[in-house]
Amino acid sequence: MTESNPSAALIIIGNEILSGRTQDLNLNYIAKNLAQIGVSFLETRVIPDIEADIIKTVNDLKKKYDYVFTTGGIGPTHDDITTKSIAKAFGLNLVLNEEIAEELRQFYASNGREMNEARLKMAYFPQGACLLKNPLSSAPGFKIDNVFVMAGIPKIMQAMFVHALSLIKHGKQILSKEVSAIVGESSIAKELAEIQNKYPEVDIGSYPFTQEGKFATSIALRSTNQDKLDLAYEEVKVLLKANGGIIG
Amino acid sequence: MTESNPSAALIIIGNEILSGRTQDLNLNYIAKNLAQIGVSFLETRVIPDIEADIIKTVNDLKKKYDYVFTTGGIGPTHDDITTKSIAKAFGLNLVLNEEIAEELRQFYASNGREMNEARLKMAYFPQGACLLKNPLSSAPGFKIDNVFVMAGIPKIMQAMFVHALSLIKHGKQILSKEVSAIVGESSIAKELAEIQNKYPEVDIGSYPFTQEGKFATSIALRSTNQDKLDLAYEEVKVLLKANGGIIG
Repeated sequence: MTESNPSAALIIIGNEILSGRTQDLNLNYIAKNLAQIGVSFLETRVIPDIEADIIKTVNDLKKKYDYVFTTGGIGPTHDDITTKSIAKAFGLNLVLNEEIAEELRQFYASNGREMNEARLKMAYFPQGACLLKNPLSSAPGFKIDNVFVMAGIPKIMQAMFVHALSLIKHGKQILSKEVSAIVGESSIAKELAEIQNKYPEVDIGSYPFTQEGKFATSIALRSTNQDKLDLAYEEVKVLLKANGGIIG
Repeated sequence: MTESNPSAALIIIGNEILSGRTQDLNLNYIAKNLAQIGVSFLETRVIPDIEADIIKTVNDLKKKYDYVFTTGGIGPTHDDITTKSIAKAFGLNLVLNEEIAEELRQFYASNGREMNEARLKMAYFPQGACLLKNPLSSAPGFKIDNVFVMAGIPKIMQAMFVHALSLIKHGKQILSKEVSAIVGESSIAKELAEIQNKYPEVDIGSYPFTQEGKFATSIALRSTNQDKLDLAYEEVKVLLKANGGIIG
């Protein structure tokens, strides 16, 4: 439905997600915001903090999609290996950015702390990288070619992501509508498929749930074409009304 | 740290995750439970409800890992294409399971509904598949070779997952400990790296956060070796105590 929009993928880098220690929240935020600016978000991979995995995944996805975002692993500790790994993926050296080193020095001084080797690590970037601002804790993310490297902490990631969005091509906004009814999805499956076939420009998803012990279904519609979206939505509403009654 | 444990990956199949409509909760549940039974959870991919993507991803990952779990897309509606796609990935026909068809007929009858084409779709499985019980809504998941195909709705997925775990090899439980302190992670990065180097059997992660405006850090340790885990944990505690004081 959005084939003319730019495409994007996300790489979530972090043992803490795959161990179950941390519930990822970045995918959902990025998904919603890419839809807003008309970028088709087509894949996410969650991988561990392992250099070979990062290199292979970045190299695979940067060829496949217009834009690749990564989250996690750009901090000062031993387990933060994303920057180094991405430099290797691109065959680039890490170079000290004196300006960022000075900003970090001032940031730490304002908190009564001195520069050290771990902190200085966050002022190194692959040669030629464009930096992504971090107003929260000074250590920036970066863009190299079509890959945007961001922090894992949601608030910092979001600040970097806002900057990243200003650097990419926007497409046609992906609009969405949703309607729910007290009806099992299998009761309306046939008619819903007919509506989907009639409106190939609209992506129609059916999501069952229960409400007060009753079978219920949400129908979510997405399209870059407002007219077709509205038409399909009206047909879905008629179908749901005839079969159980719309909620809300 | 867990190289002798079986390995596993997860494929989350669903436009609703990549559109931002739905926050995935299955990854985190699966991650925690695989750690308990000693399976190394090494990758997750989130992909859309597109047949070619499902086939390629399943074929790639089933070669790479001992076990592959999938969630989503096994319901009755037009957007549920996982079962059909996985049959194609394995080059197998879909076959009607008469016993499941009868169970579904009874399930729907008990809710005052009749069998229809959409409902019957959930009684078709790739030839030779082993079924994964669904005590909640009767339509089972299935296992084919090393791939476990489960529902996307968390409660149903969890029931199928419990069954799946009884069909796979368990390894050494991955134990974890965690301790937090009011100290910026960059203040202890050097010493923490030394502890990590001393205990290669332990995977040490550092996760910064803020508490009442102060920089704080959680150190998470994971290992299948209880003795090494305890030793590394004690050293981390000594380090944190010396640098800011442990929380809780």
